[in-house]
Amino acid sequence: MLQTTTVTPDRILDVSYAFWKTKVLLSAVELNLFTVLAEGPLSLPALVARLGLQGRGARDFFDALVALDFLDRDTDGRYVNGRDADVYLDRRKPTYIGGLLEHLNTRHYQNWSLLTQALRSGAPQSGALATGSYPALYADSTTQEVFLNGMTAGSLLAAQALASKFPWHQYETVIDIGTAQGCVPVQIARLHSHLTGGGFDLPQVEPAFRNYVHEHGLERRLRFYAGDFFAEALPEADVLIMGRILHNWDLPTRELLLRKAYRALRAGGALIVYDPMVGQDRCTDAHALLSSLNMLIETTGGSEYSGAECMNWMRQAGFYETRAEPLGDMHTAVIGFKLDSPPSDAPGTEEAHSRLDSGRRDL
Amino acid sequence: MLQTTTVTPDRILDVSYAFWKTKVLLSAVELNLFTVLAEGPLSLPALVARLGLQGRGARDFFDALVALDFLDRDTDGRYVNGRDADVYLDRRKPTYIGGLLEHLNTRHYQNWSLLTQALRSGAPQSGALATGSYPALYADSTTQEVFLNGMTAGSLLAAQALASKFPWHQYETVIDIGTAQGCVPVQIARLHSHLTGGGFDLPQVEPAFRNYVHEHGLERRLRFYAGDFFAEALPEADVLIMGRILHNWDLPTRELLLRKAYRALRAGGALIVYDPMVGQDRCTDAHALLSSLNMLIETTGGSEYSGAECMNWMRQAGFYETRAEPLGDMHTAVIGFKLDSPPSDAPGTEEAHSRLDSGRRDL
Repeated sequence: MLQTTTVTPDRILDVSYAFWKTKVLLSAVELNLFTVLAEGPLSLPALVARLGLQGRGARDFFDALVALDFLDRDTDGRYVNGRDADVYLDRRKPTYIGGLLEHLNTRHYQNWSLLTQALRSGAPQSGALATGSYPALYADSTTQEVFLNGMTAGSLLAAQALASKFPWHQYETVIDIGTAQGCVPVQIARLHSHLTGGGFDLPQVEPAFRNYVHEHGLERRLRFYAGDFFAEALPEADVLIMGRILHNWDLPTRELLLRKAYRALRAGGALIVYDPMVGQDRCTDAHALLSSLNMLIETTGGSEYSGAECMNWMRQAGFYETRAEPLGDMHTAVIGFKLDSPPSDAPGTEEAHSRLDSGRRDL
Repeated sequence: MLQTTTVTPDRILDVSYAFWKTKVLLSAVELNLFTVLAEGPLSLPALVARLGLQGRGARDFFDALVALDFLDRDTDGRYVNGRDADVYLDRRKPTYIGGLLEHLNTRHYQNWSLLTQALRSGAPQSGALATGSYPALYADSTTQEVFLNGMTAGSLLAAQALASKFPWHQYETVIDIGTAQGCVPVQIARLHSHLTGGGFDLPQVEPAFRNYVHEHGLERRLRFYAGDFFAEALPEADVLIMGRILHNWDLPTRELLLRKAYRALRAGGALIVYDPMVGQDRCTDAHALLSSLNMLIETTGGSEYSGAECMNWMRQAGFYETRAEPLGDMHTAVIGFKLDSPPSDAPGTEEAHSRLDSGRRDL
């Protein structure tokens, strides 16, 4: 049978078993493995003791991480962190993105067991977000903490890209809408000392935001704006950011939020939207399409969308000029620019054009 | 921050999200997608209707499978099977291995959510097998069917490799120990019409074995041997096979089973053991190490082991000569040869040596 065909089942087997690789990495973060090894190499028995393991399976666990290149063994057979694991999965380093892995481990891994059911019903399958209710999600303090840490870790790389790529010198204030702990404004404000602003989110989030901003010593420049973006107007700023917000909601809600952002922006301001946007061909980037299925499982009306769709919604909301740019971390940013002054008969003032051009050069 | 380091988080992100790819493929098999598309291309609405989906998320689901190369879109935008999916995931083809994916979907995916707990406790985490009880596993007929189908699909590629590689012309009878539906003896017997024998397993498995063997028209050459390999002797044959059996048990049990196999083999016979064996370096083949963690989660004393360990146990059980060989499907086979006649002062008879040599040439 095998001899008569030239196709092999290798790729099918690889993908079918890929969740084993995921889970061994997520469990390693859960067990604090990389943070412990960041202090120095440890032998098998020492590592078993430090992590509080029983011992059975432990050698296979660590050696599987060696085979996956997240650990190495030194010449004495002691385990040491791989380079990327040491930078990104040591809890004590500012580059830590393990919160995202904890979020995948505690939330998404289980949720995805319900994918088939979600496709059959079209309905969300899991927890408080399935009812579209962030207030319910935030009611339990442990759930809230894990969720907010996950949001921060999931935004960190996008926030760092935005902080370094956007022409912030042209603006004075920035407010992040649906800010969670405030990862995005913190990453931007620490690189650009002239900026002030903060983050907008539900009142329940304020203590977590204050702690996080305080830890970064930015409480004099970044404040919390409490509110519900369905019930209230958005706060006024030069730049508003909506990262991983629009994909949670259906089209009418997205359009509503874009109109609210347009109204809240000062003349000459800009709105930055980012999400894991789907490519126009819908067949090369699996991640954004899979992320859209995550929205199917977790939300009532959410999905990913393309940069072209987003630019179209922005233009309908009043934005004069739009631009899309990948952030290099699985997210794409779309920026909408608001004119310096209300449009006259001419398509725009000269000053608006010049500012737009310089903005487009950088991002 | 990102700018000051040359390591990227890309590999960490890839592995962290790899379970999304797994689950989309497993759900596609669960929904019968590839079997439906094997009949011909279908448009998005037609496919949604055929699979009984609600529609929300469906396009992202199919397009994610296109991005992962398990589907293609034709020039009319209709979905068609990718080549490997068409061969291996169409339920009506004899090359179907989707039973393995169903097994991963219904059993392993959930079990692996308990990996951290298994490492902390050293104890198995899931279901009837966690108590080492196959009789309990087989008590429920639906559970039994899914489990046995999974075993068949998981053995199919190894069985086909064994059928084509082993020098079966030198032997007349073969019995597969822990045979489940009888996938292994069926694949071997259909290629080698001179062979007779069958499969040994618990009495509860007999109806499933009889059905499967009957479907392949082999009921006159292959019979069921009912028994419990802890309580009883193994049946006599020229060749005995233990595939994915030893890794379920602790070392004393493995040694007991190898001694029983040695006793049951006719003079000049051979025992074939296969499992996803760990390489000697314990750092290049992640699959076998991860499979060992699956044994941690699912069994009381099981684990994967190396070919060298297995050959050592075989020699201690009395086997004269041993040999290890990868089967090319994530499993490795170890073969132990029993002398034609009891050893005299000389290390073996000339005929035994010549048979061994020809056996080793082929496998």
